[in-house]
Amino acid sequence: MEQRLHRIEIETRGRGLVAITDQVCGWAECQGFATGLLTIWCRHTSASLLVQENASPDVQADLEDFFRRLVPDSGNSRYRHEDEGPDDMPAHIRAALTQTQLSIPVADRRLVLGTWQGVYLYEHRTNPHRRELILHLIGEPSPK
Amino acid sequence: MEQRLHRIEIETRGRGLVAITDQVCGWAECQGFATGLLTIWCRHTSASLLVQENASPDVQADLEDFFRRLVPDSGNSRYRHEDEGPDDMPAHIRAALTQTQLSIPVADRRLVLGTWQGVYLYEHRTNPHRRELILHLIGEPSPK
Amino acid sequence: MEQRLHRIEIETRGRGLVAITDQVCGWAECQGFATGLLTIWCRHTSASLLVQENASPDVQADLEDFFRRLVPDSGNSRYRHEDEGPDDMPAHIRAALTQTQLSIPVADRRLVLGTWQGVYLYEHRTNPHRRELILHLIGEPSPK
Repeated sequence: MEQRLHRIEIETRGRGLVAITDQVCGWAECQGFATGLLTIWCRHTSASLLVQENASPDVQADLEDFFRRLVPDSGNSRYRHEDEGPDDMPAHIRAALTQTQLSIPVADRRLVLGTWQGVYLYEHRTNPHRRELILHLIGEPSPK
Repeated sequence: MEQRLHRIEIETRGRGLVAITDQVCGWAECQGFATGLLTIWCRHTSASLLVQENASPDVQADLEDFFRRLVPDSGNSRYRHEDEGPDDMPAHIRAALTQTQLSIPVADRRLVLGTWQGVYLYEHRTNPHRRELILHLIGEPSPK
Repeated sequence: MEQRLHRIEIETRGRGLVAITDQVCGWAECQGFATGLLTIWCRHTSASLLVQENASPDVQADLEDFFRRLVPDSGNSRYRHEDEGPDDMPAHIRAALTQTQLSIPVADRRLVLGTWQGVYLYEHRTNPHRRELILHLIGEPSPK
């Protein structure tokens, strides 16, 4: 059994989903593990991870609408914590409602994502940010 | 250290929770690992995983009421994405708010679920579907 | 590759976040694994796990306000399940919206938490409770 670690940086363009499926699968599947478990860790509390439908851009727009209604940006002193602006506290709440970590099994050298599943980094701040993810893979390297 | 993989199919009867505790524990505990980590991966974006109270059916009904109010089915062009009907986009949002993956430690040959914890597949579509879960177990087989 | 298991008990003071970062990191980092994966499992359905900003107490107060508005305590027969009081069903719903499990990679002998990330047990009941967490660590012990 072996382990591998990797660190990736994602430049976001402000609020919204950034597809990371190719980057994550690419690295994990390059390690040549027949069977294993990949863990993705997001090192932030105002960005998070999400598995979502990977085909229709409308899904992403509807999802963003939903979160915008559910966790409105600040106004009328809605939140105590506004140090970094009206999107600061909403970003923490959105992160609490989604994922900081995902662990995806590897089978037959591939991540077991379903056909319609994409992996996304969800940026919750309105301004662009540089985000850092840690990838950890444990498993059995395939015989050459 | 060894790994095991397994694939299970669940037939759902439309929106609601399907108990999978017995099926998941049954497989995992049969592998004879004294200590380990079981990961469950749901290969869908309109169904998800949930740990919930396993005793009262009222909990499930109240939970479903809550999600129905929080994420109403489509009407008045609430969502852009309605390709598969009024429950299509709400299903994606419900999945985003719950889990696609769960990892449960194994100790003394058993999953460490609390007394009142059940593991559920949460079907978010109104029609019955066939859902696929991948189980991955890593750990140390017990000496015979 | 080796595994370690540990069980911790947390005394909560009723609804709110309890910081467990030091306790969790302390145990995990004491095991002397250079690289690994730590999994935390919460054995309850009315308390859960959360990664949140670890600097400002205002974040915790705003987060609690948000959940209190989103999942109001019982009244006017809002919920069927009220066996243990008006905070019973809301606690189950809050747990469903947050995490029962977290898996955090270990790199260079340390958990890869971001600078502002704290790990919390989120007590959702209004009365104090004793809560139980299981920690599972898998990885490679460092050479002495």
